[in-house]
Amino acid sequence: MQFEIKIQLSNMFQHETQVRVRYSETDKMGYIYYGVYPQYFEVGRAEAVRAIGLTYRQLEDDYGILMPVMSMEVRYVRSAHYDDLLTLKTTLNELPTDQIVFHTDIYNENNKLICGGRIRLAFVEDKTKKRCPAPDDLINKLKPWFE
Amino acid sequence: MQFEIKIQLSNMFQHETQVRVRYSETDKMGYIYYGVYPQYFEVGRAEAVRAIGLTYRQLEDDYGILMPVMSMEVRYVRSAHYDDLLTLKTTLNELPTDQIVFHTDIYNENNKLICGGRIRLAFVEDKTKKRCPAPDDLINKLKPWFE
Amino acid sequence: MQFEIKIQLSNMFQHETQVRVRYSETDKMGYIYYGVYPQYFEVGRAEAVRAIGLTYRQLEDDYGILMPVMSMEVRYVRSAHYDDLLTLKTTLNELPTDQIVFHTDIYNENNKLICGGRIRLAFVEDKTKKRCPAPDDLINKLKPWFE
Amino acid sequence: MQFEIKIQLSNMFQHETQVRVRYSETDKMGYIYYGVYPQYFEVGRAEAVRAIGLTYRQLEDDYGILMPVMSMEVRYVRSAHYDDLLTLKTTLNELPTDQIVFHTDIYNENNKLICGGRIRLAFVEDKTKKRCPAPDDLINKLKPWFE
Repeated sequence: MQFEIKIQLSNMFQHETQVRVRYSETDKMGYIYYGVYPQYFEVGRAEAVRAIGLTYRQLEDDYGILMPVMSMEVRYVRSAHYDDLLTLKTTLNELPTDQIVFHTDIYNENNKLICGGRIRLAFVEDKTKKRCPAPDDLINKLKPWFE
Repeated sequence: MQFEIKIQLSNMFQHETQVRVRYSETDKMGYIYYGVYPQYFEVGRAEAVRAIGLTYRQLEDDYGILMPVMSMEVRYVRSAHYDDLLTLKTTLNELPTDQIVFHTDIYNENNKLICGGRIRLAFVEDKTKKRCPAPDDLINKLKPWFE
Repeated sequence: MQFEIKIQLSNMFQHETQVRVRYSETDKMGYIYYGVYPQYFEVGRAEAVRAIGLTYRQLEDDYGILMPVMSMEVRYVRSAHYDDLLTLKTTLNELPTDQIVFHTDIYNENNKLICGGRIRLAFVEDKTKKRCPAPDDLINKLKPWFE
Repeated sequence: MQFEIKIQLSNMFQHETQVRVRYSETDKMGYIYYGVYPQYFEVGRAEAVRAIGLTYRQLEDDYGILMPVMSMEVRYVRSAHYDDLLTLKTTLNELPTDQIVFHTDIYNENNKLICGGRIRLAFVEDKTKKRCPAPDDLINKLKPWFE
């Protein structure tokens, strides 16, 4: 007699990286300027892609793919300060299709949520500037997390 | 017999200003970096407030009010380029309460929509760092557009 | 008997434009972040070039010329604040050769010097990425100020 | 008869740290925007100060000292690209007095010099906004490198 127990704890890809807040990123209120977070989201997803064995630069240079942002939603929960070491948790809840949606939540050193963003990007062929599906290599490298 | 006819043409406040795209605001894709638009939204609402006879600076310095951003939603429709002269249309659909919601739509020189943002800000008392209602002067100066 | 008196009051090109300080450009010290001034210098020289009947964009798109910065020297004299309306005075003391040197002095609303910068740029052919002389059109349009 | 031989190998403080170039930091030329380097210089000197056992944040919060930039000189040698991992070498050639001068040289992954900057900062008492000497703790922590 055989049992097959398959426990699927999660069906997503998640990655963590850190950034240290720069003086340039503060504003006169004394906190991080609200328009700086999109840069952090960019760092979060660039490092997430690197973690699966690709880079944004490769996608552009080797695959001829551009990834313009289509939409962004940001919720600002707490303020962050100069020199804080922030943790960026970037999640993919679905495999990319003709678009890819990154969720990046940003935590401070006390593990309190600072800010959460949802960024949707398209895939565009650099040569034609027309939309295209996600490159197979990107999908294949992500598949193990979604099976 | 009496008729009362009330034609409400609009019930909102709208303001327009322009920005010229700087080289620093482009990225290697050749377009404006997606994280620059929050700066344009900021310019849009700062000039909108100036147009009713107040300034952000006064709100901070004279009224002791800070206005942190609580949420932002951005839809990217078309790409914009270096040296484009963009028109920022900033709209308030409601009088501020304990928060204020600015809608800023950005158009290029051909009057095509580039990008639209919805930014929600809170009012915070600088001294106590606690939330507070919008200053009466701000509400009163906006009222004529909402009657 | 004839006299020819030629008074050469100046032998340079000068242009003025203005920028309003954005909230994003301040830092937690409450002043403009020192690294923002290069963006203002860029605005100053872009508008100076536009004033003689050319644009940076044209130099890139129509002439195939890139203008990388080779060196920059900045002297910070006074602090500037959020919402200040700054005047950028951009000067060329010499006609461009295989390089061009812009001096931009920045004044506040009381006509006090905030900051002065000297920025030296090269001319590079986009196709070959090799240095080249300034385009004739740029030199010719500047000549009247240097005769 | 006695000889005293003192070999002074170096008389300076040097520190290295790294930054990864963000997409936001590129411009349409495809390289890092020239105005981004001051942010890197800031990272370089912030990490240099951290390495001796202090932080900028402490200098502001605990010592009540602000450090505005007085002058900056930058030499741009090579272009750097998106996703490059840059090494920032920050050097102090002298102990701080009523000012401090940081030299930051930036190298790419092939150990080629990209850019060098010399940044001079003053010490200012936050309360009075008047210039003051460097805090003793900063000088004392640096002394071992200058003896």
